[in-house]
Amino acid sequence: MKAAIVTIGDEILIGQIVDTNSGFIAKSLDKIGIETHEMLSISDDRQHILDTFALLQNKVEVVVITGGLGPTKDDITKHTFCEYFEDTLVRNAEVENHVIDLIERALGRVASQINKDQALVPSKCTVLYNQVGTAPGMWIKKENTVFISLPGVPYEMKYLIENQVIPKLVREYQRPYIVHKTILTYGQGESHVAERIEDWENQLPQCIKLAYLPSPGRVRLRLTARGEDKEQLEEAIATNVKSLDAIIHDIIVGFEEDATIEVVLGKMLKENGKTIATAESCTGGKIAQLVASVPGASAYFKGSVVAYATEVKSKVLGISDAFIAEHSVVSKEVASAMALSVQKMMQTDYAIATTGNAGPTKGDGDAEVGTVCIALATPNSVLVEEFNFGQPREKVIDRAVIKSLEMLQKEILKNLS
Amino acid sequence: MKAAIVTIGDEILIGQIVDTNSGFIAKSLDKIGIETHEMLSISDDRQHILDTFALLQNKVEVVVITGGLGPTKDDITKHTFCEYFEDTLVRNAEVENHVIDLIERALGRVASQINKDQALVPSKCTVLYNQVGTAPGMWIKKENTVFISLPGVPYEMKYLIENQVIPKLVREYQRPYIVHKTILTYGQGESHVAERIEDWENQLPQCIKLAYLPSPGRVRLRLTARGEDKEQLEEAIATNVKSLDAIIHDIIVGFEEDATIEVVLGKMLKENGKTIATAESCTGGKIAQLVASVPGASAYFKGSVVAYATEVKSKVLGISDAFIAEHSVVSKEVASAMALSVQKMMQTDYAIATTGNAGPTKGDGDAEVGTVCIALATPNSVLVEEFNFGQPREKVIDRAVIKSLEMLQKEILKNLS
Repeated sequence: MKAAIVTIGDEILIGQIVDTNSGFIAKSLDKIGIETHEMLSISDDRQHILDTFALLQNKVEVVVITGGLGPTKDDITKHTFCEYFEDTLVRNAEVENHVIDLIERALGRVASQINKDQALVPSKCTVLYNQVGTAPGMWIKKENTVFISLPGVPYEMKYLIENQVIPKLVREYQRPYIVHKTILTYGQGESHVAERIEDWENQLPQCIKLAYLPSPGRVRLRLTARGEDKEQLEEAIATNVKSLDAIIHDIIVGFEEDATIEVVLGKMLKENGKTIATAESCTGGKIAQLVASVPGASAYFKGSVVAYATEVKSKVLGISDAFIAEHSVVSKEVASAMALSVQKMMQTDYAIATTGNAGPTKGDGDAEVGTVCIALATPNSVLVEEFNFGQPREKVIDRAVIKSLEMLQKEILKNLS
Repeated sequence: MKAAIVTIGDEILIGQIVDTNSGFIAKSLDKIGIETHEMLSISDDRQHILDTFALLQNKVEVVVITGGLGPTKDDITKHTFCEYFEDTLVRNAEVENHVIDLIERALGRVASQINKDQALVPSKCTVLYNQVGTAPGMWIKKENTVFISLPGVPYEMKYLIENQVIPKLVREYQRPYIVHKTILTYGQGESHVAERIEDWENQLPQCIKLAYLPSPGRVRLRLTARGEDKEQLEEAIATNVKSLDAIIHDIIVGFEEDATIEVVLGKMLKENGKTIATAESCTGGKIAQLVASVPGASAYFKGSVVAYATEVKSKVLGISDAFIAEHSVVSKEVASAMALSVQKMMQTDYAIATTGNAGPTKGDGDAEVGTVCIALATPNSVLVEEFNFGQPREKVIDRAVIKSLEMLQKEILKNLS
């Protein structure tokens, strides 16, 4: 069973905003066995919308459309819907009451005609009620394809996908099974890994597909199995993961169903009753922010000192100017001292510290652009490493963030095994 | 002149990674007057790639393709290129030398055959040399359309767009002008703003298009003018922005050419010789990280205390337990005290502090989920506001980050005017 995801809106086509909706929708469809065949971003243009609908009609069973449903003039999706489905707009009383209620309650003002007109929907559609916003979702079937239109505001889209679209698809369609397993490796490049597992790759059964997902410093190997028999697929995946592990056990750092490193780490910290803090220079708080982005992070994340200016390293973290002058601000010694200081200050089991020069130009001290020292204070010791992550700036910051979380993950795993 | 952007890779279609490349490419094309007509994400599948190329052939003048160029088996773009262009792969000596050099120098190991085969390129293509990675870019013209293939790794793609693709397009094509101007408003919803400016919108000249870009707490109005005469377009934009400002001056907080709020703020702080620090609870370091993400931020950003746990607010920021107990941890009083404390500790002109409950469940204290108090310490005073940003968690955090930067921007603008 195949789907297409269509995003309507010029703001995406001029690069003003990045489309994160399509990824969320694809992931949600994938979980219930619906394969996203393609994603398209098109303009707020009547003809372009009509052409796209015609192109997808009967080619895929499900088309999920986001955007183009707001109250203002640049939104034309609803009228184009009527044209495509040979329908007319009718007023939906339940939606109108909800819109009036939402605006009066949340904003304390009277709903305008423009607001009320959000309750106009094509007569043939099934309305998907949007409890968190004013634009309703719409579900219309034509021949073998169902067209589902959702507002573009991310949390409204998410609400409708989770509470309306997915349950309705599950009720109304028979779907095959899709099983994914992602193996995290680090320390070797994509082609090096590929060489090591070539024989294994060649013997994979037809129902399993392998993909390499390289990113700075690591390669993820994603296995996808598709078929009718869920148990058989899961068994095939398990057998092949086991034989893969026998070949590259040295570089495998974990497995991922669906989770990012900060989620995996959070779970490990919580389950083991351990806490963490960070002291960050070149990463500017990005490690803290990533750790804190996980719901429930307060169980293990205490806080951070972002010591961006050298003087903050001395004043707040208490590392003496003489010590910094002796070792230079970007050094293993200063990184270690930062980690120990914040560990003590916030009384945590673990503490991560970064100091480096992300570029583009040399900052305080004389470290080469791209140099980052990462220290990890544990209950018994301090581990510290120096890296050069090259350029550009965003790559240096991102690699330092990932590397430091990987160091922590590895250390916790070591203590567990 | 029109372009299409095509992303190849199953990892995008299952929602494992979000496509940020297309937005960057669209923005770069837009700046030189090339309009992105559509974006497509398709699978690593030979037939799907061939069908997509055929669909775009002669429909747009430029097709930019990312992904599918790595060294491993799941990458088939290069072979499909040869099939579509009726071409064969040949070894490019310059690319091969670069690949060998990069691997030996950066990784200290001998380049494998898989590595060396990255130097195989279609014979008809112009190679776009990739100084920051091993996969070269390729440029092949067929009839009225040029197909440009780039690696999917974001910084390699960016390097090639900036250093090879854009300069080559500028040299080889005549392009019209596109002028954008975005007006930032806040405090009123999309439909409310639309009602206030309806008459103004109806009198806009044909060459100017208006779009509403709503996001939590604010609405951006984007004007786009397209035509042959650059001066005339800029004049039309300036005239209409002036007449718009006369109508909704009370809610306009700034203008944006291309810059995000952290870049605009950074420029303002730097030009005025002012410095900033943050003390963050519910935002977990995200304000610090955003401020620090701007190259050159060390000129005005000193650091942050991320006081996620209540005890860090007392131990590190020196706010007494009694004071916290009296006012509760999510309160205007505690936010103000946090801002003043970090301002003093890091000796800055301004300091931002946040304390709140981002949810999904109640944390320390008894604040409703979604409540956030934001304080801004200035050289003379402390401003503080309480908000309820609702749910979900990510929306609360993002709105708190944006709102706090807007409070700072407004305050600096007030002092300048």
